[in-house]
Amino acid sequence: MKIYEFAGFPNPRRLRIFLAEKGISGIDFSQIDVPNGAHREQSFLEKNPYGTVPTLELEDGSYISETVAICRYFEEVHPTPSLFGDDARSKAEIEMWQRRAEHALFDPIATYFHHATPGLGPLERYQNIEWGEANLRFFQNEMVRLDARLANFSFIGGAAYSIADITALCAIDFGGFVDISIPENLNNLARWYEGMSNRPSASA
Amino acid sequence: MKIYEFAGFPNPRRLRIFLAEKGISGIDFSQIDVPNGAHREQSFLEKNPYGTVPTLELEDGSYISETVAICRYFEEVHPTPSLFGDDARSKAEIEMWQRRAEHALFDPIATYFHHATPGLGPLERYQNIEWGEANLRFFQNEMVRLDARLANFSFIGGAAYSIADITALCAIDFGGFVDISIPENLNNLARWYEGMSNRPSASA
Repeated sequence: MKIYEFAGFPNPRRLRIFLAEKGISGIDFSQIDVPNGAHREQSFLEKNPYGTVPTLELEDGSYISETVAICRYFEEVHPTPSLFGDDARSKAEIEMWQRRAEHALFDPIATYFHHATPGLGPLERYQNIEWGEANLRFFQNEMVRLDARLANFSFIGGAAYSIADITALCAIDFGGFVDISIPENLNNLARWYEGMSNRPSASA
Repeated sequence: MKIYEFAGFPNPRRLRIFLAEKGISGIDFSQIDVPNGAHREQSFLEKNPYGTVPTLELEDGSYISETVAICRYFEEVHPTPSLFGDDARSKAEIEMWQRRAEHALFDPIATYFHHATPGLGPLERYQNIEWGEANLRFFQNEMVRLDARLANFSFIGGAAYSIADITALCAIDFGGFVDISIPENLNNLARWYEGMSNRPSASA
């Protein structure tokens, strides 16, 4: 089993945190030099035609890509601790919040990075600055909404730590990378962020 | 149990097809008049602050939104037939393809609709025509890629019908709604589409 990734990038980091929280170790990592376009070379596209990292290679030589699908695989083969919920209700709630964290926080800050900053430089095939700037507003609006959520809950998904927290943490840190920080008045979000950042998994 | 939706819209349709394939019936549906902005009224935002349909109301009065999260709930309480896979490997593969079908097909055609056509008219708060047109290209490129996939597999997710097929079917039909059809040379995609459209669930 092997994971193709580029260490430090937001999606590979989601998977690394997920594995650390599960206590899964001993997996080989192979670095794909994304800033230099290695994810678009034929040798990698044969593994994942969508060209994204992380990509998991299974023992039989087949591949799973899409970060959350890879996490799902490890949730199934290593169910404890559960990071996707442990009954129908909690599984649905965590999936709901995980998707909201993606659509309203993670994807918008990634879009801001790729469209309204230099992004990956010459690798950016198409940029739409106005769309990037709009997504920065979406990201900032969502921080406000999550702050209200975290007034009543310890974690994004509710009472338990879950993949929704991982997605949101990596999104907020992606924000920091492009100099967008948590506004000072969002105390609940800041408290949650400190808790997440202090978990050993955050530096996985 | 009750589902708030707007019948005929793409995401509510995904859930209706999912329920029909599961053989689940007898759930109340309540129509939210999205074209007239009812999803943004306080009475609905109290159910789902993100203002999206479908939204599921559980027996205890709590709510689940995000189409795939609602489908996950029904997969858990009514596992057969499985539409998310039935072992670690197939669950991961189906989630991978379901996400690809969303990110590369469903979301792009929705973005085209909302940004480069009149969309929902006065309800559209911000439109970026160039971004909408770019997404039409993403959608059309993905049809080509899925055609190649379907040369070797009966279904998007592999050997079995799954939620990935539901997402892709609703995306292709969303395309038809805005006059974007399957190009004539994509025979594998056309054959798959005919099969999906002929299932009784397609008119659920």
